[in-house]
Amino acid sequence: MGARGKFIVLSWRENMNPELYILGSSSATPTRERHPSAQILKIESEKILIDCGEGTQSQMIKFGIRHTGINTICISHLHGDHYFGLIGLISTMSLMGRAQSLTLIGPPGLKQIIELQIEQGGMSLRFELIFIDTRMDTSEKIYESDVFEIKTFPLKHRIHCTGFVITEKKKERNLNIECAKEFNVPISAYKEIKLGANFTNENGQIIGNEILTFDPPAPKTFAYCSDTIFDPSIVEFIKDCTLLYHEATYMKNMEDRAELYFHSTAEQAAKIAKLANAGHLVIGHFSSRYEHLGPLLEEAKSVFSKTSLAIEGEKHNVKIHNN
Amino acid sequence: MGARGKFIVLSWRENMNPELYILGSSSATPTRERHPSAQILKIESEKILIDCGEGTQSQMIKFGIRHTGINTICISHLHGDHYFGLIGLISTMSLMGRAQSLTLIGPPGLKQIIELQIEQGGMSLRFELIFIDTRMDTSEKIYESDVFEIKTFPLKHRIHCTGFVITEKKKERNLNIECAKEFNVPISAYKEIKLGANFTNENGQIIGNEILTFDPPAPKTFAYCSDTIFDPSIVEFIKDCTLLYHEATYMKNMEDRAELYFHSTAEQAAKIAKLANAGHLVIGHFSSRYEHLGPLLEEAKSVFSKTSLAIEGEKHNVKIHNN
Repeated sequence: MGARGKFIVLSWRENMNPELYILGSSSATPTRERHPSAQILKIESEKILIDCGEGTQSQMIKFGIRHTGINTICISHLHGDHYFGLIGLISTMSLMGRAQSLTLIGPPGLKQIIELQIEQGGMSLRFELIFIDTRMDTSEKIYESDVFEIKTFPLKHRIHCTGFVITEKKKERNLNIECAKEFNVPISAYKEIKLGANFTNENGQIIGNEILTFDPPAPKTFAYCSDTIFDPSIVEFIKDCTLLYHEATYMKNMEDRAELYFHSTAEQAAKIAKLANAGHLVIGHFSSRYEHLGPLLEEAKSVFSKTSLAIEGEKHNVKIHNN
Repeated sequence: MGARGKFIVLSWRENMNPELYILGSSSATPTRERHPSAQILKIESEKILIDCGEGTQSQMIKFGIRHTGINTICISHLHGDHYFGLIGLISTMSLMGRAQSLTLIGPPGLKQIIELQIEQGGMSLRFELIFIDTRMDTSEKIYESDVFEIKTFPLKHRIHCTGFVITEKKKERNLNIECAKEFNVPISAYKEIKLGANFTNENGQIIGNEILTFDPPAPKTFAYCSDTIFDPSIVEFIKDCTLLYHEATYMKNMEDRAELYFHSTAEQAAKIAKLANAGHLVIGHFSSRYEHLGPLLEEAKSVFSKTSLAIEGEKHNVKIHNN
């Protein structure tokens, strides 16, 4: 790709990377500092809400995150710390006049719970809820929008539970404007070229697409694994993800308890990240027994150095990390 | 009651009054500062939770209120801002090892919602839930414990909704110890005397109960009216209550909107307090449109001076107020 060095690159935009916002980082019960699981993956103007523990809407208010752009919500499983905040958020969206449909991806059973509460509360939603049931017998592509696609895969927990792999859609190639001008490419041909076409000029000369464009940024992938026992069989589904969120409810000295309750330790989360060759790891879903999280981070980093803690209100850039 | 002046009173205890803790004061949607409806009435060692909007358990953590003593929960109606926090609280109680049964008083439909979520989440509660359905066709005494009784009465809202009147049980009479000693009353006779008996000494002389005891404090009554349209017909149920909580979603200039949505204004809440001859009024359930609550308080006070705002984290003493 000699063109890259030859011409000035004008088309790179800032903030092109997806971002992950942490809204909740606690396991089963909230603490004074931590709230149950919820996070938002922002890809372009779309926000995918992943799990929605009690108080998620208040956390969004606290951190200044608007409802706009939330059109897809993924619920991993029906333990309350992963979805008790969903009905409240739906209710508020309706009261605030939402008209756009909302897609809810989660276990069978979610639909009945949400619809029962809507019915008993005499709520008349002003927008459509589209429920998509997750499956435990297979991994599947369950949803796609213009800018991302979502795959699910089974997690081993105490009840029906799936992980999510969310991948950016492959983008158009980036036009090398200087080069296009040099070859007198008319603006009307740009769209085709960005989609991969060569250009034939008035003399019949073919200018190869690889001359006229740069590779777009590689699609980035976010993988969400919560809740789950330590299970290397999930690695095939999350292999080479850009950013991995993996639960780390306990520390290594409570490995027996982790196994008993189908949870993971910080070390185990790091082992999965290493096996999966993840770009970066974020650990969360911390037991309320841990007031200070430093030791969990150290434990994970001893296995996989590129690890961060899920801290509420912080965001993580989903970008290709340099090794 | 000449005895009262004659002998030293030793038996008055401090903090004998019930206390009302405000946990949530917002209407339909939370704000940065306010949470949906929830409050706790503490009577002796019992805590009665009245309504339980989303985030109630986090508010309890924030304000240092333990679960201990919460054995009765009253839910006024099934709009989410009054009960979406209930399933999370129940779940946490179970995870924390609660064994004692919990009585849930609320509209028919609550049982199905709670039980469905317990079932779908694979939760095995370690304590019994006792559901008592409220009725819209009558006022009734729905529950009593050793220290209080609860009556319900219908409120006019958009769905099945009841108010609650919670009254202390009549206490034993207070023994006048000095007087009892003067008349050589043996300790073994104290219990009967506190229940109202006279005392007959060894000479056959009858010492009247009114000499040996003081009146106990008058039982105090807390009345909860939320959500409701302005409805003077409720006054008969809350007449002469010691403390009244009445919703005040809007100000007077939005009276039409209040009526349309079956809510009340601050002025209307005060009118009800005045008609009911309440000892004191607390207004709450404020619309999120009001950032500052001072004007709502002023509006109510112009009709009923003994009014306070429901401010989260504050408590109100349920005591007989001097006029």
